[in-house]
Amino acid sequence: MVSIHEFQKMMRTLYFTRDRKRGQKSTLSWLKSEIEELSEAFKLGDLKAIEEEFADVFAWLASLANIARVDLEEAVLKKYNYLCPKCNSSPCKCTFQ
Amino acid sequence: MVSIHEFQKMMRTLYFTRDRKRGQKSTLSWLKSEIEELSEAFKLGDLKAIEEEFADVFAWLASLANIARVDLEEAVLKKYNYLCPKCNSSPCKCTFQ
Repeated sequence: MVSIHEFQKMMRTLYFTRDRKRGQKSTLSWLKSEIEELSEAFKLGDLKAIEEEFADVFAWLASLANIARVDLEEAVLKKYNYLCPKCNSSPCKCTFQ
Repeated sequence: MVSIHEFQKMMRTLYFTRDRKRGQKSTLSWLKSEIEELSEAFKLGDLKAIEEEFADVFAWLASLANIARVDLEEAVLKKYNYLCPKCNSSPCKCTFQ
């Protein structure tokens, strides 16, 4: 099991020097292009590519968080701490779709 | 510390009934709109909103992975297992930016 925090740290070790040089705007663009690649993989129904593109989207999200100095684990637990942040229930009872 | 696997399971408990009904295409659209909200937060330089939007992007990515039956933790560790998948080094030594 790998924590969200540890994964983000791994991305930092692997890529932070380049991520910092590239900067927030260009890294956000990369993240968007990875989302498009995930969309394409869904359209093709290519299960292996879908899995790889999920990995890439998550990796670029972690890179972007490193640049923005946001701790992804802290951020998600602050908002989604085993309860829906809107209705405070688990499972969520919100009525929108 | 929360593992990637546990966070995805939390999202499943909270939202899977609705996520499954909404389906892959609409959930992918939600994910894209969350990325746009993150972009807006960056443009405004609103640190609290940036952190919240990171949480939302990650949450919707986990929802989409639940629909696609992809284990995010397994997917990222398969590709990024403490080494760059392209150059097999840590830190990465690839020359692209």
